[in-house]
Amino acid sequence: MSDARTAPEPGDFDLQKVLEALVDPVRRSILAQLDAAGEDLRCGLVDIPVSKSTATHHFKVLREAGLIRQYYVGTARMSGLRRAEVEEAFPGLLDIVIPRHATVP
Amino acid sequence: MSDARTAPEPGDFDLQKVLEALVDPVRRSILAQLDAAGEDLRCGLVDIPVSKSTATHHFKVLREAGLIRQYYVGTARMSGLRRAEVEEAFPGLLDIVIPRHATVP
Repeated sequence: MSDARTAPEPGDFDLQKVLEALVDPVRRSILAQLDAAGEDLRCGLVDIPVSKSTATHHFKVLREAGLIRQYYVGTARMSGLRRAEVEEAFPGLLDIVIPRHATVP
Repeated sequence: MSDARTAPEPGDFDLQKVLEALVDPVRRSILAQLDAAGEDLRCGLVDIPVSKSTATHHFKVLREAGLIRQYYVGTARMSGLRRAEVEEAFPGLLDIVIPRHATVP
């Protein structure tokens, strides 16, 4: 079973919810780590300085804004950046809000 | 005297302050109206559904984030979108957060 939790289609993104999700630096850090990983991660592998319940809240805000997908593999909750969908809806936005992680000159 | 109030140089924008400014729909409306005007406006000509003191606060947040310039002409406080500077620092961001006002097909 993949991507069981619904997320907006590209045309359905709500700019207000997206900006509310992005304004929190912890949530931008989650996005940056998912981007750097290049693959979907177990939530526990994302390093953020907050309690587990707060982390769960942050992931939920990101998911409901459509910025990430979440789904279960067995008992592990996986998360992944919806880069293609976000890029289609808001061209350039991810490159602005996620620091480039490997732009060695 | 023009642009007496300091605003960030393009390389000095603080993404956190920019996102905090943009997350408020009233402030995005101000930006949209300044963009649509195509010229600097007296603050009183920007139509937003808030008190004068609240409006002043919104303009201040936008100015301190570097998104607008403000200056006086006589006793009139003028405001203008810093489109070129914002576009240089965050390519594509304004097109995402400001609804296109005249994209008739």
